[in-house]
Amino acid sequence: MLRPRSIALIGASREPKKLGHITLKNLIEGGFKGRIFPINPEAGEVLGLQVYQSVMKVPEAIDLAVLAVPAVLVPKVIEECGQKGIKAAIIISAGFREVGPQGEACEQETVKAAAKGGTRILGPNCLGVINASENLDATISRVIDPKKLKSGNIAFVSQSGAFGASLYSWAQGKGIGFDKLISFGNMCDIDESDMFEYLATDEKTKVIVMYMEGVKDGRKFLKTAKKVSLVKPIVIMKIGRSSRGSKAAKSHTGALTGSNAIYEAAFKQSGVIKAANTTEMFDFAKAFATQPLPKGKKMVIVTNAGGPGVAATDACEEEGLELAEIDESTKKSIRTLIPSFASALNPIDTTPQVSPRVNGEIFKILLSNKGIDGAISILVGSKPREYAEEFVNAHIGVAQTYNKPLVLSWTVDKSAEDLVVKLEESSVPVYETPERAVKSMAALRKYGEFLEKHS
Amino acid sequence: MLRPRSIALIGASREPKKLGHITLKNLIEGGFKGRIFPINPEAGEVLGLQVYQSVMKVPEAIDLAVLAVPAVLVPKVIEECGQKGIKAAIIISAGFREVGPQGEACEQETVKAAAKGGTRILGPNCLGVINASENLDATISRVIDPKKLKSGNIAFVSQSGAFGASLYSWAQGKGIGFDKLISFGNMCDIDESDMFEYLATDEKTKVIVMYMEGVKDGRKFLKTAKKVSLVKPIVIMKIGRSSRGSKAAKSHTGALTGSNAIYEAAFKQSGVIKAANTTEMFDFAKAFATQPLPKGKKMVIVTNAGGPGVAATDACEEEGLELAEIDESTKKSIRTLIPSFASALNPIDTTPQVSPRVNGEIFKILLSNKGIDGAISILVGSKPREYAEEFVNAHIGVAQTYNKPLVLSWTVDKSAEDLVVKLEESSVPVYETPERAVKSMAALRKYGEFLEKHS
Repeated sequence: MLRPRSIALIGASREPKKLGHITLKNLIEGGFKGRIFPINPEAGEVLGLQVYQSVMKVPEAIDLAVLAVPAVLVPKVIEECGQKGIKAAIIISAGFREVGPQGEACEQETVKAAAKGGTRILGPNCLGVINASENLDATISRVIDPKKLKSGNIAFVSQSGAFGASLYSWAQGKGIGFDKLISFGNMCDIDESDMFEYLATDEKTKVIVMYMEGVKDGRKFLKTAKKVSLVKPIVIMKIGRSSRGSKAAKSHTGALTGSNAIYEAAFKQSGVIKAANTTEMFDFAKAFATQPLPKGKKMVIVTNAGGPGVAATDACEEEGLELAEIDESTKKSIRTLIPSFASALNPIDTTPQVSPRVNGEIFKILLSNKGIDGAISILVGSKPREYAEEFVNAHIGVAQTYNKPLVLSWTVDKSAEDLVVKLEESSVPVYETPERAVKSMAALRKYGEFLEKHS
Repeated sequence: MLRPRSIALIGASREPKKLGHITLKNLIEGGFKGRIFPINPEAGEVLGLQVYQSVMKVPEAIDLAVLAVPAVLVPKVIEECGQKGIKAAIIISAGFREVGPQGEACEQETVKAAAKGGTRILGPNCLGVINASENLDATISRVIDPKKLKSGNIAFVSQSGAFGASLYSWAQGKGIGFDKLISFGNMCDIDESDMFEYLATDEKTKVIVMYMEGVKDGRKFLKTAKKVSLVKPIVIMKIGRSSRGSKAAKSHTGALTGSNAIYEAAFKQSGVIKAANTTEMFDFAKAFATQPLPKGKKMVIVTNAGGPGVAATDACEEEGLELAEIDESTKKSIRTLIPSFASALNPIDTTPQVSPRVNGEIFKILLSNKGIDGAISILVGSKPREYAEEFVNAHIGVAQTYNKPLVLSWTVDKSAEDLVVKLEESSVPVYETPERAVKSMAALRKYGEFLEKHS
């Protein structure tokens, strides 16, 4: 499904507004290297490709079918897919379980037809999938730019298709590399556990991020999540927590959301990192995708302004991290680098008078110290440009050299947004506020603790 | 201090890196309409202006003195200011209480000299002030662009100068109108309570936002904050909450931060809206600056995608807001506007198939309903461009017409950032995630409740 050599787009249309047209266009513009076969009973040609009347008429083998036909036609089409030997199908069409009893019957019929033919299904009522490292955009999204897929090591799994697409597109603009987007929809067959199992073995994926309304099979989820968590981190934002929210989720994807307390317990037990909201979901993902795990909770904060240093200190205490006590000899080395009125205590306040290269030097001293497990860097201001550039350069490669995590808080203004992209692309995660940087570091530590306990 | 007709810049310098040069440049580039008198014993000319050897040599009256001279010289200069009849002084220079006993002595001397001459002091160790509606940039900041001061109705009061400036500059780029930035530094004389009293009477200010390390006089703060809260909202982010953070704050501005529990109680009692972090501080400020207060807690959510609608529903329940039950006749009117598979329940899911003009129509129906106190709108996706533009236009003026608050959640990508600026400039606050939009609405309601209780 994620690495097909050939794709049949069933319900291909010449009408630009139809889902069957948009998806075909995305496939082509995404630069998919394999064969694409548009399917429509009317045949002819669309977007320069020959249209076949049915999958049976396609003279070659097909790895993946993408269905954009009305719900009532889906069971029959899936049956044909089985006859043609297609092993994987993405059903984009809506009008199933989420609309009531009639749709539910249609969904069950589809599941039966698929089981008979041996075709595994993603969806229905989903947005499709993206696999950037395969140049594959098999989605109905008009939000994501298929020409700008950007491979990376975050896999994003979403039960809400449209929201997933908009978050993916937002992240694209920030320089965050999402390799995969997988939209589940109603999960009539393939569920989150199946996908976790696959992603656990996928070399490209360093962290799995999920926007979840509910799980299909609680036991299966618990078992799989725990197994996968031992291999790579899973970050989940669970919605439908409140009673009213749970009701709304049901009418959205037909998900049974279950009690919030049960989910909290399940996440904790299986090592899943809980994100309280959308912001945390991506904040944590960036950290996991780029940073080594801290081996303990002793942190240093290095800042060029006092205020946010204090804010970060508060956040550390509130998030269960500790500020490392810096030994006298280390303090001495640091004092040779900063002015007399600056502070060599933790948080270390270098003041804006100091060249940002010094911050780089200080990190080298600190991170080579055994008593320090990670560093939170804070930059205030993005002008003059040379200052910001030097600061950025002083941070690149530091975490990797010392194998200790480094996160950066930078409330950047418009003039330096390109530098943030540069940092993100160089594996330095950047956060708009000190609190977000600290919370992300705390998430890294939480996962580190889980691994230590279970190995 | 905030509306001077003439300013003496004491410590004016020709050296571009010196604070006395930067501040003078900011004053000039900000477009200050009054007279500027650079002061330096060496006299001559700087940035096209004649330099005077001392304030005593200036042939005209001076309203405000800005001091950028070494700390040891400050007491003497302040004394001269008093002799010249200058009523207000901003001391930018550092090296006072925050550096230890010697600095503290110098600060006390300064206070004495000021009292003798009747000069009120802001600072020392501060960044200065901005008053956009007076084209006044009397700061040492190189982060804020003095040519792009943007008047608005948020007054931002900060104990951390550098952080304040960087947040101000960040907000500038987002289209958020900050009229004033006031940096306190050590607060040797004018404190937050004095400034609150002034801002309460300032017509331009609709909301006071403060980044606080600690208060100078607890009793005075409590009394003033309560009085001012009855006139306009005060949003405070308090740092130095943790024991370690409190220690760090002390070495920053010498602030006595006090116990967190005491602050929490004081804020509650005086109607101050607490922001838990930097993000909330500005999120809430935007809402207060532009939205009418909700008269109750019954909300509607209108979304074009299911997922974030569920997330917003959860957030409402968690933040003490309720989802309004929509009566049958209203539901009926809404159903005529949306497709059969869309949901007219609250949250109302219009789906992306519907023209965004419909969302505008729906808001009109909902907000004219007595049982509804406010609306949370959610947009997913920013393409096609015409769709996003229509959506934006459908939101402008709605809150004002019905005198009920409307907040918008839009996880926007780069292509539509200009539309966010347009919305912010048209008094529609935009939030990157549904949770942030809901929290801001909850802050409006919290303040509304305080007013109802005390009037």
